[in-house]
Amino acid sequence: MDSMMMGAMSKNMESMPDMQMMDMSVVQACMDACAACEQACTVCSTQMMDCSPACMNCADMASTMMRSMLRMQGMTPASMMAMLDACIAMCQTCMDECMEHADMSEVCRLCAQACQACMDACAAMRDMMMAGA
Amino acid sequence: MDSMMMGAMSKNMESMPDMQMMDMSVVQACMDACAACEQACTVCSTQMMDCSPACMNCADMASTMMRSMLRMQGMTPASMMAMLDACIAMCQTCMDECMEHADMSEVCRLCAQACQACMDACAAMRDMMMAGA
Amino acid sequence: MDSMMMGAMSKNMESMPDMQMMDMSVVQACMDACAACEQACTVCSTQMMDCSPACMNCADMASTMMRSMLRMQGMTPASMMAMLDACIAMCQTCMDECMEHADMSEVCRLCAQACQACMDACAAMRDMMMAGA
Amino acid sequence: MDSMMMGAMSKNMESMPDMQMMDMSVVQACMDACAACEQACTVCSTQMMDCSPACMNCADMASTMMRSMLRMQGMTPASMMAMLDACIAMCQTCMDECMEHADMSEVCRLCAQACQACMDACAAMRDMMMAGA
Repeated sequence: MDSMMMGAMSKNMESMPDMQMMDMSVVQACMDACAACEQACTVCSTQMMDCSPACMNCADMASTMMRSMLRMQGMTPASMMAMLDACIAMCQTCMDECMEHADMSEVCRLCAQACQACMDACAAMRDMMMAGA
Repeated sequence: MDSMMMGAMSKNMESMPDMQMMDMSVVQACMDACAACEQACTVCSTQMMDCSPACMNCADMASTMMRSMLRMQGMTPASMMAMLDACIAMCQTCMDECMEHADMSEVCRLCAQACQACMDACAAMRDMMMAGA
Repeated sequence: MDSMMMGAMSKNMESMPDMQMMDMSVVQACMDACAACEQACTVCSTQMMDCSPACMNCADMASTMMRSMLRMQGMTPASMMAMLDACIAMCQTCMDECMEHADMSEVCRLCAQACQACMDACAAMRDMMMAGA
Repeated sequence: MDSMMMGAMSKNMESMPDMQMMDMSVVQACMDACAACEQACTVCSTQMMDCSPACMNCADMASTMMRSMLRMQGMTPASMMAMLDACIAMCQTCMDECMEHADMSEVCRLCAQACQACMDACAAMRDMMMAGA
């Protein structure tokens, strides 16, 4: 995300009581990982291998996750935690499917990497929120 | 959803080991409630009241939930349960926001109703899956 | 869409100068056709046949079209016309792909029907707007 | 987009007859501009100013545009051109709205810039396709 827009968004978030314990670099890393995961899953889904439906589900969940972080005013800690858990679970499902043919398809291998990175970034976000709660 | 398409989809799902305990009428009711919730939240978000960001988040999550039910091949019981929990949590957040001005706005009142119906349908889906597990 | 929500939405639209020539039954029919098209295309895309990428593209465009009709405050006649043209073109592409195997797959046949219905409803919307311009 | 995934995607596109005249750096620039536009519009829409509905419409169209470039297998030149025109028109509408309060809101000013950049990138994509046709 553009750094000036990130700055403007951070300033908004500082005025939200539940969001003051947020380290914006963790939020930004999570949004970036979600965006990369959405793109990788979308490309992977076009291969029409067995993983395609999981990739489409994961692309949509990663996109919804990213958007909800751009709209923190409309989240509570409880809904944010539940969304992060769902995104992690969906990335795990997609990664498991793609790893089945990671040796046959470079795209599947890259998609599995993007899912892993997204899971890790969502887990870091969850850990930060639990530490601040 | 069109009944012939629903029939074709049900036939596919019967071939998935994890999905055989699914009562398709519960699945269909949940998809319909998600679709109605997405539409209500999208309209409500245009009012530019305090609930708007929550409504946008809820519209995206309800849409992602509906689509994942149309692509069960790419779900596991674990990822489905986590998605249902996230959708329920997001509907709760949106409903709470909309109820704050339900007396000032008929759209907010209708949106809160659609969120409640979506939560109930997702909970019914979760209960069915837990009973079958 | 729920009739009470449709009523509330129609009342909003009557206050928009560009939208007064809108027949709300045409708008509603178009939103319903877009929603049905999104669902049919999403199911069809899971078959992992040659049409899948076109179906995914069409599902996203139909969803974006429907949402933009729920948010008319953020449309101009020019952007609405361009979106309708894009939705019609995308439905045509998807329908052409699905018709290639309509005899092999009932889902493809139903998806092609939903694309045709969505094209027709978007064309009716466009005709209404041109008549009112 | 990750460069290895971009490489894998480019290789796929070279096998599509209609897509051989594509300069992948123009495609990548367009996808990146769409992704940045979606994010800027999503943040801008949470301000609950008059531009919000246009921002939401533009975020969805930019996302759909980006995804369709990641799934070129499911596009024809005709549907791609119509989608580009729609994305350009939607960006214009959103930019016009945001410029009304660009002096009051830094976020609106940044959003208008992102819309302009997205329009320019879509126009470059369209010009490339017309030159190759």
